[in-house]
Amino acid sequence: MGIPTPDGSPVDAPAVPVFFLSDSTGISAETMGNALLIQFPELRFERRLIPFITTVEEARKVVATLDAAMDGPITPLAFSTTAVTEIRDELHRSRCPLIDFFDLHMTKVEAILGHEGQRVAARLHGLGDVKRYNARMAAVEYAIEHDDGQSMRALDKADVILIAPSRCGKTPTTMYLALQHGIFVANYPLVDEDFDTNELPKPIRHLRDRCFGITTTPARLSQVRHERRANSRYASLEQCTFELRRAETLYRIHKIPSINSSAKSVEEMSTVILQSRSPQPAA
Amino acid sequence: MGIPTPDGSPVDAPAVPVFFLSDSTGISAETMGNALLIQFPELRFERRLIPFITTVEEARKVVATLDAAMDGPITPLAFSTTAVTEIRDELHRSRCPLIDFFDLHMTKVEAILGHEGQRVAARLHGLGDVKRYNARMAAVEYAIEHDDGQSMRALDKADVILIAPSRCGKTPTTMYLALQHGIFVANYPLVDEDFDTNELPKPIRHLRDRCFGITTTPARLSQVRHERRANSRYASLEQCTFELRRAETLYRIHKIPSINSSAKSVEEMSTVILQSRSPQPAA
Repeated sequence: MGIPTPDGSPVDAPAVPVFFLSDSTGISAETMGNALLIQFPELRFERRLIPFITTVEEARKVVATLDAAMDGPITPLAFSTTAVTEIRDELHRSRCPLIDFFDLHMTKVEAILGHEGQRVAARLHGLGDVKRYNARMAAVEYAIEHDDGQSMRALDKADVILIAPSRCGKTPTTMYLALQHGIFVANYPLVDEDFDTNELPKPIRHLRDRCFGITTTPARLSQVRHERRANSRYASLEQCTFELRRAETLYRIHKIPSINSSAKSVEEMSTVILQSRSPQPAA
Repeated sequence: MGIPTPDGSPVDAPAVPVFFLSDSTGISAETMGNALLIQFPELRFERRLIPFITTVEEARKVVATLDAAMDGPITPLAFSTTAVTEIRDELHRSRCPLIDFFDLHMTKVEAILGHEGQRVAARLHGLGDVKRYNARMAAVEYAIEHDDGQSMRALDKADVILIAPSRCGKTPTTMYLALQHGIFVANYPLVDEDFDTNELPKPIRHLRDRCFGITTTPARLSQVRHERRANSRYASLEQCTFELRRAETLYRIHKIPSINSSAKSVEEMSTVILQSRSPQPAA
């Protein structure tokens, strides 16, 4: 029962069994649990996701699994986001200690809001608001269509245009913004010809306000390009240095905000990009 | 300060101000907070994300923002995943009640593990394990290259091959699995010619074990196709019914697991697909 989730922890330590329990996808339970586990880099964890626990019967089976794990050499951890009272009550019958993300916080939120929460199996990662969901799907489609300057059609529809030399991380960042935030993102590769002048390339010249630049370190870019075309001029440190310098000059001249992708994840870059676009209300 | 996040709540209710506070991207704080807020569908929330609170000074500014919100007509909610003790202490100085996802759970996890957590600003959504991160990025690249049967090259490299008639939801599910789980996913569109026999299409015939089918309802498929090509044979209810029936027959004959996408999100479908691939240890 359950999905083993990948893990980058040290392999020499004995693994602590970890269960993520949920009445839906378990994405919240994993996020919440992993945010705590990351504080213990010296330990190794063996993660199991048990999603879609929707009946008391299923909860009973999970309790059996947890109790069996309790008989092992290391006390397991179980993180739960289950909302339905009867299912939570059943899970709490296990001898395994349960980190319940719902219980206590729900009571506190209810007190602050002066409203009672429904305590139903709520599909936070379900279809939810259909309009918003469809917008996310449309954004993914748009992103694929406009990946790497493939299509200049409908560039005007983009909320954000990521610009950068090839292999700086435009594509995955584009996909993340589309899939998670429903943002229409096009990306436009800066190539040698774009560096002949200090003007922005023609297709995006009138869209400067929506542009966001990505940069990286020449060493990192050269490494990534070597993986694609080993020992090419394209991958040489000289060429990478030249392209990045020229790109950064363009960003500066045209006051295009930019971010260095060399030590940042797509999640972090996306957060910065979204923040740069938001109105900044007075504190 | 902060990013307004989209919201599908009713527009007539007065909005409760909600803050998500984090020392990194805030993705965990949003996930955790929204899992609670979804239990109050009758209320409207005005969400603000304040990410990257990394110094006590910045925390002090956030406290000013929270206190200003406290002077408004509705008591705000503030969810925090901040880990660093001095920053958390500063945030707790606000008059605004703080739902602290770190505090209590951390103490409990420490007690169970018999280890002290680092309590550092941990980048759960940062680069983290670089090998795993690079695998996710490679998976996104692979997904784009193999979208919609574009390239039959390296189909053997796929961990999962999603098969379905056009517009059943293959592409966004592919992207989600690649981006979030680093799974190599190809997708293969079933077209009229593939329905002439009961055999699987040749390019995927030897890869049956990695195939996962998607289906939907004829009405839903017809609606989605009409948006793309209105009043075409392609979008007609008859054609959609035919293709789905034939696809479902193929799945059944070849014992290919499948899922109905009509009422499921990409997150839910991805969870089911991952679960079907995982070894099922005895309980």
